[in-house]
Amino acid sequence: MRFKTCINYLLTVSQHEVFQLLGNKLSQFGITPGQYGVLNYLWEMHEASPKELARELSLENSTISGVLDRMQKKGLIDRLLDPSDRRSIRVVLTPEGAALEGDVLKAVDEVNRQVLSRFDADTAETLLRCLQLISGVQPEA
Amino acid sequence: MRFKTCINYLLTVSQHEVFQLLGNKLSQFGITPGQYGVLNYLWEMHEASPKELARELSLENSTISGVLDRMQKKGLIDRLLDPSDRRSIRVVLTPEGAALEGDVLKAVDEVNRQVLSRFDADTAETLLRCLQLISGVQPEA
Repeated sequence: MRFKTCINYLLTVSQHEVFQLLGNKLSQFGITPGQYGVLNYLWEMHEASPKELARELSLENSTISGVLDRMQKKGLIDRLLDPSDRRSIRVVLTPEGAALEGDVLKAVDEVNRQVLSRFDADTAETLLRCLQLISGVQPEA
Repeated sequence: MRFKTCINYLLTVSQHEVFQLLGNKLSQFGITPGQYGVLNYLWEMHEASPKELARELSLENSTISGVLDRMQKKGLIDRLLDPSDRRSIRVVLTPEGAALEGDVLKAVDEVNRQVLSRFDADTAETLLRCLQLISGVQPEA
């Protein structure tokens, strides 16, 4: 099949496979990969606007709003009105959302290791650098 | 950001970037990347069941049905009842769908080259092999 050397097809199927692995792993915490993305950003930044989260996670603004609705219902985040601008919403962690950090990061790290364990260290490094370049995510200095 | 070495995140953003490039390129033919996937399979196999297309393209059965609806409305495919089993549907190309083959494959090839042109030949080869392994798509012999 011509598909097998098509970068779009290979990225789509690879993303689907790894997303499934991560989704299965995260289900023990009752969260999805997208919700993990939000938590991960908030664990580092403490608060963010919905727009900022959408941009950071490469999601549409309409998608992030549904993700945040479900996370708020589960008690993982709160949405606060910015006192200096009442049209502006700040997303913050609840204690429950904050408490997941250690266990979830450990689980995500296990999925990463599982996927990359098929490759030797140089190959895994090459793969990550290629994906950083394609995605426009800058490698860490 | 921890994200930058997370294989799930890098695959998701890379897939999104390349999907956008391909989508822009294919818009001149009035088709989406998913519709290109269906056409590509039919150009090779001439006909397929919706289930077979969903499996080959790693789509849900409910997703493929919407894709096929839109392609049939555009006159790119037809859905025929199998005469030997009236519950079974065969998807076939129309002459319009068949006629797109040369130009669309050329455009897709250009997107592939554009994405991979950032890497030297060995690195591009390593990237494709890694993605073939992760996606479970076997490399060509």
